[in-house]
Amino acid sequence: MRDDRLEKQLAFCKEIDKEKMIGRQTYLSDGKRKENDAEHAWHMAVMAILLSEYSNEPIDVLKTVSMLLIHDLVEIDAGDTYAYDEEAKKTQASRELAGADRIFGLLPDDQQKKLRALWEEFETGASPEARFAHTMDNIQPMMLNAATDGKAWEERGVYLEQILNRNQHTAAGSEKLWQYALEHFIAPSLEKGRILQK
Amino acid sequence: MRDDRLEKQLAFCKEIDKEKMIGRQTYLSDGKRKENDAEHAWHMAVMAILLSEYSNEPIDVLKTVSMLLIHDLVEIDAGDTYAYDEEAKKTQASRELAGADRIFGLLPDDQQKKLRALWEEFETGASPEARFAHTMDNIQPMMLNAATDGKAWEERGVYLEQILNRNQHTAAGSEKLWQYALEHFIAPSLEKGRILQK
Repeated sequence: MRDDRLEKQLAFCKEIDKEKMIGRQTYLSDGKRKENDAEHAWHMAVMAILLSEYSNEPIDVLKTVSMLLIHDLVEIDAGDTYAYDEEAKKTQASRELAGADRIFGLLPDDQQKKLRALWEEFETGASPEARFAHTMDNIQPMMLNAATDGKAWEERGVYLEQILNRNQHTAAGSEKLWQYALEHFIAPSLEKGRILQK
Repeated sequence: MRDDRLEKQLAFCKEIDKEKMIGRQTYLSDGKRKENDAEHAWHMAVMAILLSEYSNEPIDVLKTVSMLLIHDLVEIDAGDTYAYDEEAKKTQASRELAGADRIFGLLPDDQQKKLRALWEEFETGASPEARFAHTMDNIQPMMLNAATDGKAWEERGVYLEQILNRNQHTAAGSEKLWQYALEHFIAPSLEKGRILQK
């Protein structure tokens, strides 16, 4: 017996397995290999559940977690764009839009609209949930970078100014977590010269 | 300024990074490598959000997703126990209990109790959310095994009887998804001889 709706949903579930093949620039805490998008999404989702009390504004945790779990799916087609790769960032938006069309398009209409709206809300950052999700998206790799004594920062020759620029909206989701990250994740690597200063 | 609560929470968030290093027996859909616990948890969490409509009973989706995201953390200490490894399964419970004590013990008391209760609820399968979570936990690797034409089943010499035994409670979470899995994930590999029959 055919069931178009369920078949579409499971075709999507199978397709998104590819997110595990999209590499990021952050090392795992043991410094041995870099993480992938699926691992990153899982890590942020658990963190959001545990740290939601630090959101500046009240948030719907399920919505935030859903957003975090799906917001990188477009990278299955678009690839991961490194936060400090200015060339790649020029084409990032158009590549990700095409990815959203194809990947969310595998789902039944109602779920396609729902996930696409979540992704767009994350992209525009225009809600308490999106602001807190961005805080998680920025805090999680900083926590891992700190765990490896700034290995990824040092390898890439990243400047403090770039990190601060990248994180200009991190405090908009959580003042408290941004302050913690500044003191515990960024400052130690800065003192050791793993983050550069002009 | 010290903040014990936040420090405990972030120590836990850093520690659970190790879940990405715990390998499972399921191949990714391209058959090139096996997935790890964090990737598995992410995949199931997204699937639970999209497939909750097929739960036999109404479920709290955030609770189900939280359960799926955290239920394998004990394997950071206990390791992954393969579903068809009867020797390893004899010591699985005690190894996982010790893991739960240490890992959840990193959190502040209230969150420790909450996550531990979620994990125990999953283990006993004694709620609609736990039953549906088990369905996800069983359906996701079957979907990937089917995507690789039963590669992991064939390599391990798995019998249909073992799969049916392993899945005796899968229908308790979702009759519909279990029927779909039987027809679309198990039957094709059975016909091709990738799953053995006595």
